[in-house]
Amino acid sequence: MEKITGTNLLQEFKLSDAVVGGDITLRATVHKYKPMGGFAFVTLRTGRYVLQAVYSPEICPDSMDDIKEGVFTEITAEVREEPRASYGIELTIKSIKLIYAPKENYPLHVSKRRLGCSLDINLDNRSVALRNPYERAAFKFQEGVAVAFADFMLKNGFTEIRTPKIVAQGAEGGANIFSLDYFQKHAFLNQSPQFYKQAAVAFFDRVFEIAPVYRAEKHATSRHLNEYIGLDFEMGFIDSFYDVMAMETAALRHMMTYLKENYANEITILGADIPEITEIPVIKFEEALKLSRGDKAKNKFDLDPSDEVFLCDYAKENFDTEFIFVTHFPSSKPPFYAKDDPEDPRCALKFDLLFRGLEITTGGQRIHDYDEQIAKLTRQGLNPDDFTHYLESHKYGLPPHGGLGIGLERLVMKLCNMQNVRQASMFPRDINRLLP
Amino acid sequence: MEKITGTNLLQEFKLSDAVVGGDITLRATVHKYKPMGGFAFVTLRTGRYVLQAVYSPEICPDSMDDIKEGVFTEITAEVREEPRASYGIELTIKSIKLIYAPKENYPLHVSKRRLGCSLDINLDNRSVALRNPYERAAFKFQEGVAVAFADFMLKNGFTEIRTPKIVAQGAEGGANIFSLDYFQKHAFLNQSPQFYKQAAVAFFDRVFEIAPVYRAEKHATSRHLNEYIGLDFEMGFIDSFYDVMAMETAALRHMMTYLKENYANEITILGADIPEITEIPVIKFEEALKLSRGDKAKNKFDLDPSDEVFLCDYAKENFDTEFIFVTHFPSSKPPFYAKDDPEDPRCALKFDLLFRGLEITTGGQRIHDYDEQIAKLTRQGLNPDDFTHYLESHKYGLPPHGGLGIGLERLVMKLCNMQNVRQASMFPRDINRLLP
Repeated sequence: MEKITGTNLLQEFKLSDAVVGGDITLRATVHKYKPMGGFAFVTLRTGRYVLQAVYSPEICPDSMDDIKEGVFTEITAEVREEPRASYGIELTIKSIKLIYAPKENYPLHVSKRRLGCSLDINLDNRSVALRNPYERAAFKFQEGVAVAFADFMLKNGFTEIRTPKIVAQGAEGGANIFSLDYFQKHAFLNQSPQFYKQAAVAFFDRVFEIAPVYRAEKHATSRHLNEYIGLDFEMGFIDSFYDVMAMETAALRHMMTYLKENYANEITILGADIPEITEIPVIKFEEALKLSRGDKAKNKFDLDPSDEVFLCDYAKENFDTEFIFVTHFPSSKPPFYAKDDPEDPRCALKFDLLFRGLEITTGGQRIHDYDEQIAKLTRQGLNPDDFTHYLESHKYGLPPHGGLGIGLERLVMKLCNMQNVRQASMFPRDINRLLP
Repeated sequence: MEKITGTNLLQEFKLSDAVVGGDITLRATVHKYKPMGGFAFVTLRTGRYVLQAVYSPEICPDSMDDIKEGVFTEITAEVREEPRASYGIELTIKSIKLIYAPKENYPLHVSKRRLGCSLDINLDNRSVALRNPYERAAFKFQEGVAVAFADFMLKNGFTEIRTPKIVAQGAEGGANIFSLDYFQKHAFLNQSPQFYKQAAVAFFDRVFEIAPVYRAEKHATSRHLNEYIGLDFEMGFIDSFYDVMAMETAALRHMMTYLKENYANEITILGADIPEITEIPVIKFEEALKLSRGDKAKNKFDLDPSDEVFLCDYAKENFDTEFIFVTHFPSSKPPFYAKDDPEDPRCALKFDLLFRGLEITTGGQRIHDYDEQIAKLTRQGLNPDDFTHYLESHKYGLPPHGGLGIGLERLVMKLCNMQNVRQASMFPRDINRLLP
């Protein structure tokens, strides 16, 4: 009987495989093909890199008749030093074998540095658009952001959890929720893992989750997605919500270092601007609004996009950082699980983190006491009986705790200075887009 | 203005913090409290460990009046060697401070080695049940399985992708799909990331995803969940589907080693049985059925649970392994994207991996040629016009490729010799369960 040992695996090309003076064999997509009369420039696309190669019939006996943009090939080549080429190398093709030729030519300028089409055309033809090195690099980079976040969390005693997205009840309340029929029961797609993260604090002390989050918001803006990835964490035994902000600051610092060390290739392709994080200023909501709006600050309960831009500019000018924490939002507003400030119950121990003019995080200290949570639910016009399962955690005990959620696509968008959050979502979902 | 530096983080207890002869301060939940007259045994639960401690009023001046099971404390203690205790240490409490005492006592026997209640009671009271060390260990272990999978994938040139779960069309077809209203459009919860993984092969060569998968199956069995976590990968430029099986074999071997190195604590608590993987036998579907059923094998198109048990026993007896690959399933059956065997078009290049009597993986080589895919869709009674977006990838080119999906909960269930897959899901979703 046949056996699989898994000891001789098919290898994906790594940059370290290309040793100057040596030969390599790799399987790659032809990214660009430019016959020059007598020889040809062939650009090869591997899963991560774009490599420059030269074909000449004196060196390679194989025919180039079927070689064109988009075909899949196996190539053997000598690696030569070439300071003007990417990664300082150029391949001299010694053999080229066609593996497969697609039916049709690309409908987009995949091999250009940037696609040069509208975002709608890009998204309508997403499976082709992402073959463009800039477009795909956003998602290799996105991988890095999430991997670095997980790496930090695991090193700091957090357990990675996986919680259901089909739920009987949304964590954030309100009408912005997708509903579905679940075996004749009314169910929803979760707006955040909040309830489950809190429950998990009681048995893991610290947890994180990287998973999709659903918001049925009818916005059609450059900063909203209806399905996005949340980088969430929750930690128990805190002294105050400053512990949560400190953990986020350290996490972001680790992530930026990790990206610079492991995703330099994508940082270059994307022109990403990775900030140094030394310290992040903290401003209270009331003061932030006064700074941003002066006398017009009255009766506001949240920041507008223009406030977020203003406050980041303010942080940049005064503290030489592109981040700023805004804290102590009005306690009368959702979420109902935000702990009120014992020193000033008009405020909740809630914070936002703004970066380059955009809110990328919401977090805070949560209510851990059962009676306190019942009272706040009631104060906000909610019925505690609707939250029986959630409140079990409080009844049988939660330590003082807090946490946050970071929007992955927003963070990528801002690190790469993109104009629209859809550019940071591989197959975005918005009010008008359910395909591809 | 206040600043957050993130340089002085609240630390979670690590086993390496407990140095014999030294003092430690930790925040922990009281797992068990047993006054003995003159002194007391206190068992402490941290996020990962359960530690034995001793209180005596001669050494610790603090009152124990409010200390009981379930309260949250801060303790300073001396670490003493104690070979009979877990991890070989016992803490002598020097100070104990109550952080918070919950409203009610646990309704379950959290501090027993096993809860000793029915699975339904366990799941109904999940946020308490998971405070039991055995119950929670399943999910620390689950973390390890997923982290090890990702680690292997990243080291082997795979890119981690995140694809939408709200889709216009299910990847597996059929009626077993949840539907929802998406801004007046008819949408579904994806049955697998199949379409997106295949699209991504064209731009990343190799991809993986760890994400929820939805099946609206009306089963109520010990092996089905309606929302579960898929460990999925897809790889391009393959020679055959044996490359996919080899990659899985190597991945599983890496994962088992990783678990033994990093999750020994949970392996012990769970009594998990981590297999050695040297080689995995491969049997064709037709032969497998004949072995399992003899003459009754006719007109079968898939394996039954009893076949899976038989084949694993067969592998154990004949090849001393608890794994077996079954290949070459009938091509007339779904999925429509499975490539038919050119040497025998009655068979598809599809495989299952069975482990300890259960299918834990389905995979195979996919159709990469546009015309071939159109023909198979048509042959299976499907309309290619319904798959326009999916087929864009084929039209503009995919290399020969294949991949698979592993059910995370099923793998954990079998590694831990659990009887029901719900035990391996933190908050399971089944036909009767939408809460908690």
